[in-house]
Amino acid sequence: MAKPVAIEVYNPNGKYRVVSTKPMPGTRWINLLIDQGCRVEICHLKKTILSVEDIIDLIGNRCDGVIGQLTEDWGETLFSALSKAGGKAFSNMAVGYNNVDVEAANKYGIAVGNTPGVLTETTAELAASLSLAAARRIVEADGFMRAGLYEGWLPHLFVGNLLKGQTVGVIGAGRIGSAYARMMVEGFKMNLIYFDLYQSTRLEKFVTAYGQFLKANGEQPVTWKRASSMEEVLREADLISLHPVLDKTTYHLVNKERLAMMKKEAILVNCSRGPVIDEVALVNHLRENPMFRVGLDVFEEEPFMKPGLADMKNAIVVPHIASASKWTREGMATLAALNVVGRIKGYPIWSDPNRVDPFLNENASPPNASPSIVNSKALGLPVSKL
Amino acid sequence: MAKPVAIEVYNPNGKYRVVSTKPMPGTRWINLLIDQGCRVEICHLKKTILSVEDIIDLIGNRCDGVIGQLTEDWGETLFSALSKAGGKAFSNMAVGYNNVDVEAANKYGIAVGNTPGVLTETTAELAASLSLAAARRIVEADGFMRAGLYEGWLPHLFVGNLLKGQTVGVIGAGRIGSAYARMMVEGFKMNLIYFDLYQSTRLEKFVTAYGQFLKANGEQPVTWKRASSMEEVLREADLISLHPVLDKTTYHLVNKERLAMMKKEAILVNCSRGPVIDEVALVNHLRENPMFRVGLDVFEEEPFMKPGLADMKNAIVVPHIASASKWTREGMATLAALNVVGRIKGYPIWSDPNRVDPFLNENASPPNASPSIVNSKALGLPVSKL
Repeated sequence: MAKPVAIEVYNPNGKYRVVSTKPMPGTRWINLLIDQGCRVEICHLKKTILSVEDIIDLIGNRCDGVIGQLTEDWGETLFSALSKAGGKAFSNMAVGYNNVDVEAANKYGIAVGNTPGVLTETTAELAASLSLAAARRIVEADGFMRAGLYEGWLPHLFVGNLLKGQTVGVIGAGRIGSAYARMMVEGFKMNLIYFDLYQSTRLEKFVTAYGQFLKANGEQPVTWKRASSMEEVLREADLISLHPVLDKTTYHLVNKERLAMMKKEAILVNCSRGPVIDEVALVNHLRENPMFRVGLDVFEEEPFMKPGLADMKNAIVVPHIASASKWTREGMATLAALNVVGRIKGYPIWSDPNRVDPFLNENASPPNASPSIVNSKALGLPVSKL
Repeated sequence: MAKPVAIEVYNPNGKYRVVSTKPMPGTRWINLLIDQGCRVEICHLKKTILSVEDIIDLIGNRCDGVIGQLTEDWGETLFSALSKAGGKAFSNMAVGYNNVDVEAANKYGIAVGNTPGVLTETTAELAASLSLAAARRIVEADGFMRAGLYEGWLPHLFVGNLLKGQTVGVIGAGRIGSAYARMMVEGFKMNLIYFDLYQSTRLEKFVTAYGQFLKANGEQPVTWKRASSMEEVLREADLISLHPVLDKTTYHLVNKERLAMMKKEAILVNCSRGPVIDEVALVNHLRENPMFRVGLDVFEEEPFMKPGLADMKNAIVVPHIASASKWTREGMATLAALNVVGRIKGYPIWSDPNRVDPFLNENASPPNASPSIVNSKALGLPVSKL
């Protein structure tokens, strides 16, 4: 008996069969695929994470390309199945592709796409949102109000932190870290201290210029400092946001010892990757320091939390939604769809995967190119002249 | 039998008896009163709102001054009791004093203090915090995570709004409204539209200069517009924050008709006064428009919410904590204490109640003046030359 797979089909007579393993936000990506002559099939199976077997069923006997998700295991089995079905392209709807065995894709000549260039501001805004929510104890206060516990204004009720004039610490000042730093510096007149192996000249220059601008307008200027160690940031900052890449050197970067260095009333935000924090040590620290607060978008053993975290009132926990803005998610869907159809049609690869504005402009046709194919060199695919 | 009133006493041999009806944040206010020779008594009664009878008990036979709260009914009865006990001064720990019958205070020659000048940034930061939390559905997402419903990353999970490049609408561009506008414009590169009966030249000039600064640094400038009607703001803005004063003209300013003018996915924030919004109409609007979101610090019949509001997932509700930062609340306590002791000692009234920095500097003694006495003219009190 066939598995009950709910499939939504657009343009049934299209020449190329493109499958999306999940419904994706917006409709532009569907229309773009149809415009290029694709039959579009979207899986609506009520299951958060599709298994390899589920996806083999979706690929079937003939499939030109698949758009998939970070939660799926794209290795030898799936690329072999896709290749047998005549497929040429796969794209993650994500920047990361640690779920993809690129070597296996190379073996079958299948292009692997990802979707950089649309996440920076949305992710930095989530870090800012968690920072402000933690500073003012929004989740805790909302729960108190809904529980009917509010009886009248009190001098001590949910007293939090004023950010203005305090110090924001940024660990990892790449694109997202720098965007976040600017939100807190410009929006809330915080002074900046950052740690990064590389000097962020662009950020330093901007904050210097902004400080001068404030001064010229009769206001207190903001300051910046590049710390010589991460510990310096932990000791000095009132609010700290983590934006490193996850590798061996950043695993449990924030551990028991480093938590102890932070101010008792500091705020820690993590929108990078869960294992950057030792979550068990964090739960203990939150328990022992009721005015220490944390805003987490990622977890060490996602989708799970370490025991006790869900009970902590001084934690805000959200389910990996850093890139979850309408603009970004629709953009990711568009880029993933164009990666796949570009390869199917034999278009070249876009020269700069971070400069994706031309693909996102809703008032014009996108360039005839795949926005970002991570194994284009290995496959010898041509690069666009644009 | 005497009522069981829990009183904390500092400096029992002090010359003047000053009573605080509630414990207030920080300790500086207590130390300042002791420095001026006061015996300080703080009521710790486990009761959110003290009755007139409770406060009469606290005043007792001899009392030089009282620091009280916005939730208490300071009228003929209490001022008469305070006067009989030899009292000269009362101060709210609040900017507003709608709980005070100033005529009655005048009749007994009692000074009435309030605490302006320390709330602007903290209140504007709460409005920003509610704006960002609503934009990214933080409370809803936190509840989902804690309930153990997260099974893995999904393209559609808690998709919210990217603020960058969108339009922020400010209704009432006074001190708090302007501070909020700048946070959203500078922090998140939002374009500004505002409505106010008075032109906010200072805000307009600043946003113009900031736009030029961005342009000079190779970035997209932000824009501003003064709307000719409130409706124009409601129609055009993606995020709207209310900062009017509450009077007859602003009662139910946001009603059913005006809610209907707003974008279906707009965000509305209110940190001003509850009755500015028709809360019943709001609940209906939230029910009918699941992507319309609201962040509320105040309610029409505080401390209660209108039926249904507590069940709405697209609402964030917090218990009137706009001024609840450590810095502001400790500052309010300091100003209230200095209002009272200044009058007791016969000091003059500070010339500008909004320029209170000298009183808040923890490294120096405060000026010998009452920071803000609202009935100083009626009582013919001298103004400080400073």
